[in-house]
Amino acid sequence: MEKFAIGVDLGGSNLRIGAYTQSGKHLGSVAFPTNAASGYIPVIEKMCDSIRCLYQEASGHGEFAGVGIGSPGPLSLPDGVLHNPPNLPGWDGVELRREITRRLPWPIWVDSDANVAAFAECRLGAGAEYGLDSLCMVTLGTGVGGGIVLDGKLWHGLNGAAGEVGHGPLILDGPPCNCGARGCLEVYASATAVVRRARELGLANETGASQGDLTAARIAQLASEGNAVARKVYDEAGYALGLGLANLVNTLNLSLYTIGGGVSAAWELFAPRMFATIEELSYVYRMSQPDRWDIFQPRRTHICRARLGSDAGLLGAALLPFQRAD
Amino acid sequence: MEKFAIGVDLGGSNLRIGAYTQSGKHLGSVAFPTNAASGYIPVIEKMCDSIRCLYQEASGHGEFAGVGIGSPGPLSLPDGVLHNPPNLPGWDGVELRREITRRLPWPIWVDSDANVAAFAECRLGAGAEYGLDSLCMVTLGTGVGGGIVLDGKLWHGLNGAAGEVGHGPLILDGPPCNCGARGCLEVYASATAVVRRARELGLANETGASQGDLTAARIAQLASEGNAVARKVYDEAGYALGLGLANLVNTLNLSLYTIGGGVSAAWELFAPRMFATIEELSYVYRMSQPDRWDIFQPRRTHICRARLGSDAGLLGAALLPFQRAD
Repeated sequence: MEKFAIGVDLGGSNLRIGAYTQSGKHLGSVAFPTNAASGYIPVIEKMCDSIRCLYQEASGHGEFAGVGIGSPGPLSLPDGVLHNPPNLPGWDGVELRREITRRLPWPIWVDSDANVAAFAECRLGAGAEYGLDSLCMVTLGTGVGGGIVLDGKLWHGLNGAAGEVGHGPLILDGPPCNCGARGCLEVYASATAVVRRARELGLANETGASQGDLTAARIAQLASEGNAVARKVYDEAGYALGLGLANLVNTLNLSLYTIGGGVSAAWELFAPRMFATIEELSYVYRMSQPDRWDIFQPRRTHICRARLGSDAGLLGAALLPFQRAD
Repeated sequence: MEKFAIGVDLGGSNLRIGAYTQSGKHLGSVAFPTNAASGYIPVIEKMCDSIRCLYQEASGHGEFAGVGIGSPGPLSLPDGVLHNPPNLPGWDGVELRREITRRLPWPIWVDSDANVAAFAECRLGAGAEYGLDSLCMVTLGTGVGGGIVLDGKLWHGLNGAAGEVGHGPLILDGPPCNCGARGCLEVYASATAVVRRARELGLANETGASQGDLTAARIAQLASEGNAVARKVYDEAGYALGLGLANLVNTLNLSLYTIGGGVSAAWELFAPRMFATIEELSYVYRMSQPDRWDIFQPRRTHICRARLGSDAGLLGAALLPFQRAD
């Protein structure tokens, strides 16, 4: 009988908790609004109550490996200490692992939401599909996050901030980013950036949409229908992704890079410019370039959409207890 | 009694071969001009003859672990196949590991010159000094190379090109680089770039030096004497290094980054701008910033000069047979 574990996807809006076996079989889950503004104590109490309930329900399914938490950042690892997390206002300094460990009798792992998504994608998504145990995942959501899995383990670095590929100088005269740099990947390829850029270019007026209606998904739809401004916005996102990936390919030389998060649904709109940019600017990519970018070829650099969709974070959190320790 | 190994530093100008114990004790070495233009066969024959001689001389010193070769790139690993190496003209397609293995009865490892220098720096340089087994080393020589050691092992990536931190888009409107990108670290912080930039800014005329006299070291000397143009050249190199390191810190979040190669002798000239740039543009650096950048502090990001100097490549090659296999 397989072991099982419980994962928590602690989002700024929603808190999701799921029990899964080691191979990713879903045993049960719950979800409710996080209500982060109520302060961390009631949220963590409710989270722990739900974990206990799920444990009771799933405990016939084998040995219990523990609980994994995927949290918004920035946070220091392994203790999961939050540092002014923009998506959990008022939670600065909360020591997630300690708070949960004092309430539950099981081993607790904490990691960033982007890291756990990358870990799931490696173990049960594109990594598993291609038989690879290393990848870099870039998550295009409200912000841009990233995670790096090397030889089957998350690469955390000094304090868990490794894989922050959404930040750092990329286009030096680009818009300022909250991180202090300018022209980061996040200011071009996040959902927020796509909407901001479309507004700058007058898309809202052009289509008659009110400001509130304009989402990254709506802009993608307009682009698919041929709207030139909407196409330009995604083309620019593709260029920034190409620049970022060119640097990542030269630094890491991995076999697999996956693009996830909500914006990745617009893959067809940004991928052509992204691939053209990587090919032009990364000689390491050209050394191991596949004949076609839409088919995986062993010993070639493959860049593709993530496979797991919006469950990647929950699933990845539940896989943390199964990460080998060494 | 310690094991020993033989390392080869196959340079475009000089071929150096040395026998060392596992802890880096020097047992003997030879050096002669590479004469790469004579073709690869006579060079490899002479290299293998010298390895045999050194083995004879050193064989009383313990068990022999094998031979490590540090080669200019680009090359594919683990086979050490050269791809139009600019510093070994006419050697395209040479399979270094195979050519040497067929001539010698011992296990042979091949790696890039930048990788072996990083490995030595981790095992016997700054890494050893601070008790760390991970680092990223940036080597500022004729070009800019790099190497990444993670948990005591070189990170090679798909085909050995990982750590190519001298290349990739950095300053998008910068000078073109041989790699196909523009504004790479190499076009600002290599010895070649420092001389080119000084000439562009008219330094040769200003000082009355003939074109041939202008070297990165001479420019550093002029800068130390207060020459404004020479200072500007190194300040620009520091800015580019800061941008490159900001991205590396955000991606890898390592404890230790070392700067080696000949240009690193001008550390005092480029370091102030480099640190100011990293601090401004990398929030991951700010999360783990030391109080002072000139003193190592545990659990903080430390960026410093490499310790081993021009022997790093030879020593690192000799350490390759001692890299754990797993």
